[in-house]
Amino acid sequence: MPELSLNPDRLFPADSSTRALARSLYESIVDLPIISPHGHTDPAWFATDAAWDNATELLLAPDHYIFRMLYSQGIDLDALRVPRRDGVPATDPRAAWRLFASNYHLFRGTPSRMWLDHVFADVFGCDRLLDAATADDYYDRINAALATPDFRPRALFDRFRIAFLATTEGADDPLDHHAAIRRSGWKGRVVTTYRPDSVIDVEHEAFAGALATFGTLTGEDVSSWKGYLAAHRKRRADFRAAGATATDHGFATAQTANLTPTESEALFGRIIAGTWSPADAELFRAQMLTEMAKMSVDDGMTMQIHPGASRNHNAALFHSHGRDKGADIPMRTDYVQALKPLLDVVGNEPGLTVILFTLDESTYTRELAPLAGHYPCLRLGPPWWFHDSPEGMRRFREMTTETAGFYNTVGFNDDTRAFLSIPARHDVARRVDCAFLARLVGEGRLTDWEAADLAHELTDGLVRKAYKLDAPLSAPEAA
Amino acid sequence: MPELSLNPDRLFPADSSTRALARSLYESIVDLPIISPHGHTDPAWFATDAAWDNATELLLAPDHYIFRMLYSQGIDLDALRVPRRDGVPATDPRAAWRLFASNYHLFRGTPSRMWLDHVFADVFGCDRLLDAATADDYYDRINAALATPDFRPRALFDRFRIAFLATTEGADDPLDHHAAIRRSGWKGRVVTTYRPDSVIDVEHEAFAGALATFGTLTGEDVSSWKGYLAAHRKRRADFRAAGATATDHGFATAQTANLTPTESEALFGRIIAGTWSPADAELFRAQMLTEMAKMSVDDGMTMQIHPGASRNHNAALFHSHGRDKGADIPMRTDYVQALKPLLDVVGNEPGLTVILFTLDESTYTRELAPLAGHYPCLRLGPPWWFHDSPEGMRRFREMTTETAGFYNTVGFNDDTRAFLSIPARHDVARRVDCAFLARLVGEGRLTDWEAADLAHELTDGLVRKAYKLDAPLSAPEAA
Amino acid sequence: MPELSLNPDRLFPADSSTRALARSLYESIVDLPIISPHGHTDPAWFATDAAWDNATELLLAPDHYIFRMLYSQGIDLDALRVPRRDGVPATDPRAAWRLFASNYHLFRGTPSRMWLDHVFADVFGCDRLLDAATADDYYDRINAALATPDFRPRALFDRFRIAFLATTEGADDPLDHHAAIRRSGWKGRVVTTYRPDSVIDVEHEAFAGALATFGTLTGEDVSSWKGYLAAHRKRRADFRAAGATATDHGFATAQTANLTPTESEALFGRIIAGTWSPADAELFRAQMLTEMAKMSVDDGMTMQIHPGASRNHNAALFHSHGRDKGADIPMRTDYVQALKPLLDVVGNEPGLTVILFTLDESTYTRELAPLAGHYPCLRLGPPWWFHDSPEGMRRFREMTTETAGFYNTVGFNDDTRAFLSIPARHDVARRVDCAFLARLVGEGRLTDWEAADLAHELTDGLVRKAYKLDAPLSAPEAA
Repeated sequence: MPELSLNPDRLFPADSSTRALARSLYESIVDLPIISPHGHTDPAWFATDAAWDNATELLLAPDHYIFRMLYSQGIDLDALRVPRRDGVPATDPRAAWRLFASNYHLFRGTPSRMWLDHVFADVFGCDRLLDAATADDYYDRINAALATPDFRPRALFDRFRIAFLATTEGADDPLDHHAAIRRSGWKGRVVTTYRPDSVIDVEHEAFAGALATFGTLTGEDVSSWKGYLAAHRKRRADFRAAGATATDHGFATAQTANLTPTESEALFGRIIAGTWSPADAELFRAQMLTEMAKMSVDDGMTMQIHPGASRNHNAALFHSHGRDKGADIPMRTDYVQALKPLLDVVGNEPGLTVILFTLDESTYTRELAPLAGHYPCLRLGPPWWFHDSPEGMRRFREMTTETAGFYNTVGFNDDTRAFLSIPARHDVARRVDCAFLARLVGEGRLTDWEAADLAHELTDGLVRKAYKLDAPLSAPEAA
Repeated sequence: MPELSLNPDRLFPADSSTRALARSLYESIVDLPIISPHGHTDPAWFATDAAWDNATELLLAPDHYIFRMLYSQGIDLDALRVPRRDGVPATDPRAAWRLFASNYHLFRGTPSRMWLDHVFADVFGCDRLLDAATADDYYDRINAALATPDFRPRALFDRFRIAFLATTEGADDPLDHHAAIRRSGWKGRVVTTYRPDSVIDVEHEAFAGALATFGTLTGEDVSSWKGYLAAHRKRRADFRAAGATATDHGFATAQTANLTPTESEALFGRIIAGTWSPADAELFRAQMLTEMAKMSVDDGMTMQIHPGASRNHNAALFHSHGRDKGADIPMRTDYVQALKPLLDVVGNEPGLTVILFTLDESTYTRELAPLAGHYPCLRLGPPWWFHDSPEGMRRFREMTTETAGFYNTVGFNDDTRAFLSIPARHDVARRVDCAFLARLVGEGRLTDWEAADLAHELTDGLVRKAYKLDAPLSAPEAA
Repeated sequence: MPELSLNPDRLFPADSSTRALARSLYESIVDLPIISPHGHTDPAWFATDAAWDNATELLLAPDHYIFRMLYSQGIDLDALRVPRRDGVPATDPRAAWRLFASNYHLFRGTPSRMWLDHVFADVFGCDRLLDAATADDYYDRINAALATPDFRPRALFDRFRIAFLATTEGADDPLDHHAAIRRSGWKGRVVTTYRPDSVIDVEHEAFAGALATFGTLTGEDVSSWKGYLAAHRKRRADFRAAGATATDHGFATAQTANLTPTESEALFGRIIAGTWSPADAELFRAQMLTEMAKMSVDDGMTMQIHPGASRNHNAALFHSHGRDKGADIPMRTDYVQALKPLLDVVGNEPGLTVILFTLDESTYTRELAPLAGHYPCLRLGPPWWFHDSPEGMRRFREMTTETAGFYNTVGFNDDTRAFLSIPARHDVARRVDCAFLARLVGEGRLTDWEAADLAHELTDGLVRKAYKLDAPLSAPEAA
């Protein structure tokens, strides 16, 4: 039966001298705590600290990285217990796990495989590879562990040595779980992030409901442009009070706009009246990115822009299963013209931080690095989603460093819903960064002490600076 | 005089431990027979088994990979005996060969150079490099060999250990050569591929003639939408009877459409009436890709889409020399929006296989790997044409594996008219894949036994699965 | 205090056998003189041979590669003494230098860092790293050196072993400095390059003035199409008389046109009358590229096309500081359709050389290598601007060689205003090319003697051929 063991030199270069240097850099940062400033874990886990049910519910059914690969090879989502719009299929979770296990070879060469093996070996102590023969053993072992106190969310949070974890909530979220976390006295630092997409994107299926809740939560007249902006300001203050240091925005494009107040008010009028065109919807998203940037200048929140996904590409699957089912496909993305209206307004603000992410690697050298290498407010987010991988991280450093340097980047984001994989993901990022730094040293492009300093910056200093983790945030405004 | 010898470790990584592993992986697959599921060799060669004339006619004049490079450096095509529309130039073939030989340095660093050296050394036993000094010796040696029975097409086919070879014929081709091959009793497995471009693309210069022949061959009224579709079904059955397991489609874009039957019929009416606009021509190609996919669901033929070339870019050269003269230039290609109409219809069909190729590498991580990593029907074809090269293959694996895995790829295609280069091309692909796998093992991303398994899959298993070489094809429909 | 020393094996691969080969290739070309066929040094330096003032004025304030990176991290340009439209800020140059020095870590991993260290160590003999502690020592040492005869422009030109240096002047430039250089009897070969952008681009802020001067200098009626073309012919002859062998064109796109004379005349009429639209402005630039190409066929000047920058992206900075302040951002660039009109006219001219540059690396494999690998007139310029870097050069060779070969490339261009960095930049290019060639040898894709031959070609032969440095230029026409 094939063994499972994590190669201690994994992801380091083959050449022995470079490998030794990479290892030494890695050893100098391996004990640094994890800072996770952008992700999608469920705050309810940390609020309730309830035990997870079983391996399938925790590791398979909610993870679109995993079930999309199985689906791509003809495996039915129902057989994996992936929830449909109308409920969870009746599939036995153990049967779902067996199906996954017997197709584990499909993940060879993927980051999912590296993350999963890391979780299986490090979190659950497995020492044989997952496959059809070991499926039941895995399933029983994981379920048994989950039933113990040591595998509850807060215990794992501590075991993972997480110093800071940001979740993401919509503008219509009451933030009850975050309030419960703070009330509980638990010392884990779990904060929220302001993600107002559903109250900005009139084409979002939840827009009407979210907007109504947004008005209720703030007591503002969100059908007027002035009241709508005031509601954003209030909710940003609420989020800051819940520890948020950042906002996040994920529209299909990076388009921004710079309308006059009169034009904005007229546009908002069409949005509220329901007389908007698709071009209006895009223009409103564009203008609101600029409005959010202006509010960030005022309240100091770091702004994150995650553009470029064609969401819900598979029409039939969206109909049956809804969002986030592995059917979001990246698109060609423009930044140079798209961001100019926003940059014309706030581009030279030294106190503002706008972090750009991309799913279009062709923009790294052509657009993103030159933009971040010039504008004071811009920083480059780490390789995202499909590019959160060893090759993706290597390309990111190779394609951005020479123009933007290291100091216009912001360390690693795991961006994950898969809480147990957080240490694995950060470990991959640390290893790949150390491998890149070791190559630069080996090629005489950097000294070893500079590489050591940078390894620390990429893991800790640049993250804290970009997300203002040590800065005194401006006090929440009176609500 | 410079030697010619093939480095047994060519294309393996420099680092000694990774190199040793790559070599060992390669040795485990080097004896596997060649499966060539997509190419453009002439079936007449295998039908008649006639000897080739001379080195120039066989290796130089028909190979646009070679003469375009010489042309790019100011060498006249007439001097290379490249055929014009009005006939073959009177140039002495030996003089053409000498000109090629004395410019052989232009190919340094190109895959053509690797393939040619492989052919010269392995097929013809040359041991000095081709140059002006050895030109005559090469020419005489090659011609002498070609005159012997051992260098006839069928003998080479056997010597090359080709288990399966697909050619490509138009929908208006009578398939006589393939019939002759089957009648001959020769055991070589040479089959056809259904390539209906010239009866679909109304902007193709051969459209009118091809459509007329299409009608004659099928006995259908190809001026009616219903008859036209029926004619495709009949010819697909004819091709399957001639061994075809796949269709192939090579338009400038990957645009597909999903029209209603009424819209399709009206569009086809404009095509036949000659009242079509360029937009109609594109829409008809787009709709026909979807029609072909639907027929593939019915008859089980694998569908190949080869988009992205701006054909015949050099107007003067097209006028004097016609198609396929090295003047086709790749273009930016969209897949995400372009394929959605087709995928809305057949994307979730588990029995369908649609293989996507590209000339636009920027789509590997951004579009193609995410699409293939989700849709059950999609697979990624190997690096194509300009990217059928060591660096192209390396980039393909580095940019697709992490999102699509290995199992959404389909092994290697040589896609060549240059029959003698087939073993060389497959050898390059096997070596580069083994080098990539060895690197993954060296970096702790894969175990050695998994790499060995994958090396075999990439050479054999995935090819046979994608092209359904072992599947019982549905029986040909009655014609 | 950290040392500064240049690693003699810098930029060579880590693997010891490949490294040894790279070093040996490099040693075979290290003594070749520098040929700098495209750059932006100031001819006044060589005409007057005046001493430079101080380190800040020479190395910091004019170099947008450097101050844009500092600006991107929130450092004020005034504090760096970067000139504003209304004059040079009053900042003490020593204070500016200290600010730069204390932020020198921002350049880690960038080519600027490699070039600067090379200049500091090799030109000025510094042996400790630049930082806050060594800032004053650097400043004093550099200033002291600059005051001596050995650090005057001509002395450094000779010390740098520059065999040929091309500057770039506008069509409205009187070429006085070049005349002074020739009159002086100094033997340094410094020539000009014809860059007529400001008399072609009606959207250029200097167009009206430049056009008037253009008329005055030539005595032609530049308000008529015929006179305007005649003026270009005269000035091209003037530039050739001042040693020019090339022209240069830097518009936002690579769009060309192929209008009839009547259409061109009508278009020029609208340009002169001020009744042009933005589309007219683009069409006129496009047509003029084709006109320039036709004149190059006549007079033998090599044509350089540098497209793809969105100039002056930062509106506020352009308002306060003007052009060339590090705020030019690359854009997606099309070549395939854009160049076709020009290529339809002159693409097959064997005597013409058109060198294409890009800021969009996604075009290397998709468009540029296939175009250069076919058209006799096309050659690929070296990696430019943001891509003039170790990783950029490596990607260029990896992405163009297999399709275009080495012989459709033209060696290195430093393209710099920073005269002292010229040896550093050429050294980086030589090292990276040798590293690439060594890898090809290590992987059995090239023999060692071919690599040595190519190293020489890339440094010398191909440059001289592309820029016709040994060809007898056609005699200047009578003015």
